[in-house]
Amino acid sequence: MALYDTMFSQLDVTSSQLLVNDGFFRDADFRKQLSETVNSLLNLTVIPIFNENDAVSTRKAPYQDSTGIFWDNDSLAGLLALELKADLLVLLSDVEGLYNGPPSDPKSKLIHTYVKEIHESEITFGDKSRLGRGGMTAKVNAAVCAAYAGTPVIITSGCVTDNITRVLQGERIGTVFHKDAHLWINTQEVSAREMAVAARESSRRLQVLSSEERSQILLAVADALEKNESVIKSENEADIVAAEEAGYEKSLVSRLALKPEKIASLVRSVRMLADMEEPVGQILKRTEIADNLTLEKITCPLGVILVIFESRPDALVQIAALAIRSGNGLLLKGGKEAKRSNEVLHKVITSAFPDTVGDKLIGLVTSREAIPDLLKLDDVIDLVIPRGSNKLVSQIKDTTKIPVLGHSDGICHVYVDKSANIDIAKKIVKDAKTDYPAACNALETLLIHKDLSTNGGLDQLVTELKIEGVELYGGPRASALLNIPETSSFHHEYSSLACAIEIVDDVFAAIEHIHEYGSSHTECIVTEDSEVAEAFLHQVDSAAVFHNASTRFCDGARFGLGAEVGISTSRIHARGPVGVEGLLTTKWILRGNGQVVDADHGVTYTHKELPIKA
Amino acid sequence: MALYDTMFSQLDVTSSQLLVNDGFFRDADFRKQLSETVNSLLNLTVIPIFNENDAVSTRKAPYQDSTGIFWDNDSLAGLLALELKADLLVLLSDVEGLYNGPPSDPKSKLIHTYVKEIHESEITFGDKSRLGRGGMTAKVNAAVCAAYAGTPVIITSGCVTDNITRVLQGERIGTVFHKDAHLWINTQEVSAREMAVAARESSRRLQVLSSEERSQILLAVADALEKNESVIKSENEADIVAAEEAGYEKSLVSRLALKPEKIASLVRSVRMLADMEEPVGQILKRTEIADNLTLEKITCPLGVILVIFESRPDALVQIAALAIRSGNGLLLKGGKEAKRSNEVLHKVITSAFPDTVGDKLIGLVTSREAIPDLLKLDDVIDLVIPRGSNKLVSQIKDTTKIPVLGHSDGICHVYVDKSANIDIAKKIVKDAKTDYPAACNALETLLIHKDLSTNGGLDQLVTELKIEGVELYGGPRASALLNIPETSSFHHEYSSLACAIEIVDDVFAAIEHIHEYGSSHTECIVTEDSEVAEAFLHQVDSAAVFHNASTRFCDGARFGLGAEVGISTSRIHARGPVGVEGLLTTKWILRGNGQVVDADHGVTYTHKELPIKA
Repeated sequence: MALYDTMFSQLDVTSSQLLVNDGFFRDADFRKQLSETVNSLLNLTVIPIFNENDAVSTRKAPYQDSTGIFWDNDSLAGLLALELKADLLVLLSDVEGLYNGPPSDPKSKLIHTYVKEIHESEITFGDKSRLGRGGMTAKVNAAVCAAYAGTPVIITSGCVTDNITRVLQGERIGTVFHKDAHLWINTQEVSAREMAVAARESSRRLQVLSSEERSQILLAVADALEKNESVIKSENEADIVAAEEAGYEKSLVSRLALKPEKIASLVRSVRMLADMEEPVGQILKRTEIADNLTLEKITCPLGVILVIFESRPDALVQIAALAIRSGNGLLLKGGKEAKRSNEVLHKVITSAFPDTVGDKLIGLVTSREAIPDLLKLDDVIDLVIPRGSNKLVSQIKDTTKIPVLGHSDGICHVYVDKSANIDIAKKIVKDAKTDYPAACNALETLLIHKDLSTNGGLDQLVTELKIEGVELYGGPRASALLNIPETSSFHHEYSSLACAIEIVDDVFAAIEHIHEYGSSHTECIVTEDSEVAEAFLHQVDSAAVFHNASTRFCDGARFGLGAEVGISTSRIHARGPVGVEGLLTTKWILRGNGQVVDADHGVTYTHKELPIKA
Repeated sequence: MALYDTMFSQLDVTSSQLLVNDGFFRDADFRKQLSETVNSLLNLTVIPIFNENDAVSTRKAPYQDSTGIFWDNDSLAGLLALELKADLLVLLSDVEGLYNGPPSDPKSKLIHTYVKEIHESEITFGDKSRLGRGGMTAKVNAAVCAAYAGTPVIITSGCVTDNITRVLQGERIGTVFHKDAHLWINTQEVSAREMAVAARESSRRLQVLSSEERSQILLAVADALEKNESVIKSENEADIVAAEEAGYEKSLVSRLALKPEKIASLVRSVRMLADMEEPVGQILKRTEIADNLTLEKITCPLGVILVIFESRPDALVQIAALAIRSGNGLLLKGGKEAKRSNEVLHKVITSAFPDTVGDKLIGLVTSREAIPDLLKLDDVIDLVIPRGSNKLVSQIKDTTKIPVLGHSDGICHVYVDKSANIDIAKKIVKDAKTDYPAACNALETLLIHKDLSTNGGLDQLVTELKIEGVELYGGPRASALLNIPETSSFHHEYSSLACAIEIVDDVFAAIEHIHEYGSSHTECIVTEDSEVAEAFLHQVDSAAVFHNASTRFCDGARFGLGAEVGISTSRIHARGPVGVEGLLTTKWILRGNGQVVDADHGVTYTHKELPIKA
């Protein structure tokens, strides 16, 4: 009390001690008067400070018995909050709030909203944890009692200045207890986390297996797919019927369908992966650090990967097979239109796993609502791969801290230089736009050197595109020159038989245009001048830059990468078409015979690069 | 009106058209009655829908002249909001709100809070942009007028269901206009973005230079540092005096000091980087895709890197030199205790840049408040490298979507197997803990095979550590066995002459312990059994795993990587000690002579790996 008095008086605030006893609360008159007293004090801006009147208490510890009304300061606070009809009870602790494990464990997460049904069983109140010793159990008990009786409670840290003010301003700190809390949140986060943790555990068991054993699993998966072809087909047929009844677009329904030859081709590709050179444990670099001290940088699995895909159920098989080959755990979220197909494929694949690995290696997430929860799990999911519309990818990139492998836009450019061979330019421009107009690597903006507008080159290119039925939208210069409609934006991805066209002064203006409006996906220069070509190839800051070749070559299969995980426009981890290496990371292995650093006198460093094949 | 009527009647709401004219508002009686009418309608739950009474208006377009009171529906809305003393005016648009450029440009950012002083000049209201045509200029003018006269305004999209409800519920959507808005936000975000954009532009100019020209810049930087040694020393001295006066810790002051030999050694390291093999443009993979169609994967600069470092001003020189060598732009944020040192070093270094590159290649951020703004710029900053305390790194990781290269914890383990050579174990354990106890690669938890507790091995190790003055904290088994205090947590990083010790059953229990409590940094096994060693090396999921060598070897210089950018415990981009390759990404270059895809009939794919040296 003396300390409270001193501290409050520095703020010119008076405080007043109120000592109460457990038994008082059985007396209705006391309770009425208590409220009046506290209200009077507050009207006089005097802060009441409650404590048990230990000196006259006849009770013996432990207080928590059947006769007790309160047992400790926390339960006293809860009781008073109810008696005084408080709007909010704030319980101050020495940690930020309630964690789902020991607060000192970095894996423990602060629980922002306590939901009895979820958290009662999840939280570790071990004897060994600070939770148990630090009184958090008592705080949670008091908080639950008060909250369910009607006074919301927030447990937060008393060690952080202004935390009380921040709570009152509605900042999201500490842990809130409220009788309606179970209505605010769903239980998905918990189960999403459990799935991710289980996938990681299974992936570690998968990694222990030999390359040969992982191949065997893939062969078993291929066999299971073959054996279950009829049930897969009937479930897929049910999805197709439902999609048609729901009036989905024809193109979506066609992507949904697993035709008979499709299953056979999936089985073939799984068997091909079984035969593939082992991607894990590849030595990327070997260095002799000192005598008998050899360092290796080797490839290893990333861990747990979340793949969110739309429509095509065959994507599930491909990505599952890649995960098994590369020793990763997987969480899969497919589109609801392919629900039954995905469920049967998932079941067939995971049933083929040996018990040593377990079927939780690959988790199938079924509800759309789970996605936001999954995207929060940056401590247990290592990479997100969205395979779907630009909108899906953008939304995911905007809402997660987990690294995302993918590309939202594909604004690809072809620049035709003044020195271009016009026949080559015509071929490339035609292919880049018309081979598959909706592809992400299709041409969206054609840039033309200004000299071609006077020597007939421009006209030839425009004619070629018009013959193919391509609608042209001009930039300011091109629309004036060609008398075509002006493009609404150079950022637009047409994804159809249409593209933008603009005149530029030279290769440097083209590069500038690409940096200003491009999406760093794929760009091409058509020129016979190798100096101009090299300037373009090296200065354009995109994932893929081509000279005299169609943008459509930007693709994992065409690049010879084998299975394609996706195309990335990120600069981190993987860029451009990504094969199985996108599912891998590296680690350093050092083998010695007792070497120590000893302030760098322990060994004589040689730092000799060694051949990679030992 | 008919549409409004129909739509509202579906909700059983009546609407009522009110047609007004500009001149009416000059009449005080009309204005009084207008308010009364609207209030009466609202009391009857009739929605008033205002419009100009165009039919009887005598005005001619354009309306915005000196006599007009309102000119369009937006200014009418603003006027009415003020007349009716509205609490809030919501203006609905076909875009999310006000952007700082054309909304179709993905680089344009939604402005959440409009501040006249900042945004008036920043926003592009070009003739060509949708902003100009779509009426956003009119909306912003009306919003500014109403807001400054006292009615807050929100511009948001009318195309999204529930946006009005969401605005009323206080969700952060659209753009808010409020007369006090300038008090809510600061101008840092704008300048941080400008610095980052300028650094990227300069970096592109740097990348155009030849390797030799970049070397020349480094040599010029080295010369400038030498030439300005005295002014650098005097500014550094001023920082030291200020730090001492401020009562900073001695260790911090000592890290702050640039001793004379330190500048000479920095100059030497900059000259070494000038001589270094060119890291940019290295060919990592070459593939013949088809005849005369060759694919290369080459290294290229990441772009713009933000480095946040504490105390040591020499870090500024090292990272600046690395950025120049690798063609990257840089934003630097140093500690305030080294403010003058950092400023003079930054000035000396950037003054040595040729005009072709420009001094904005490296930006120095001076205010601490700028950090949150910088961390939001995930569209212009490619990587954040924090160099400082665990707390700093954790905070940064928690608050940014930009990839972070670094490690927050260094909970390193040494596991001594039953088959260990105890002399080697003693040497390694001693070195791992005592060579530099505060290092991130120092031993924090010693795991001992249970058999060593009966054969004397455990006692020898404990004695060795006690001789060195290491305090030991036991896990449950070790504390019982050795009669030492129990550790509060296996997650604790002692960073001093202290460590945890625990008994485990075998190598698999050790691996499990490391996965449960480790931070994936560096772990070591001491064993003479090569099978056990290989299991540990391959199964432990950490950035660096060692056999019979001290954890202290986990370091860029000791690994022979040259300059060290940092040690990463991330699985993405770079893992473990990271050299200059941490500042690089890759791109794909394809050289052809007119090849097209043509539904994969355009070329005959050969996919032949070619030697890397052409």
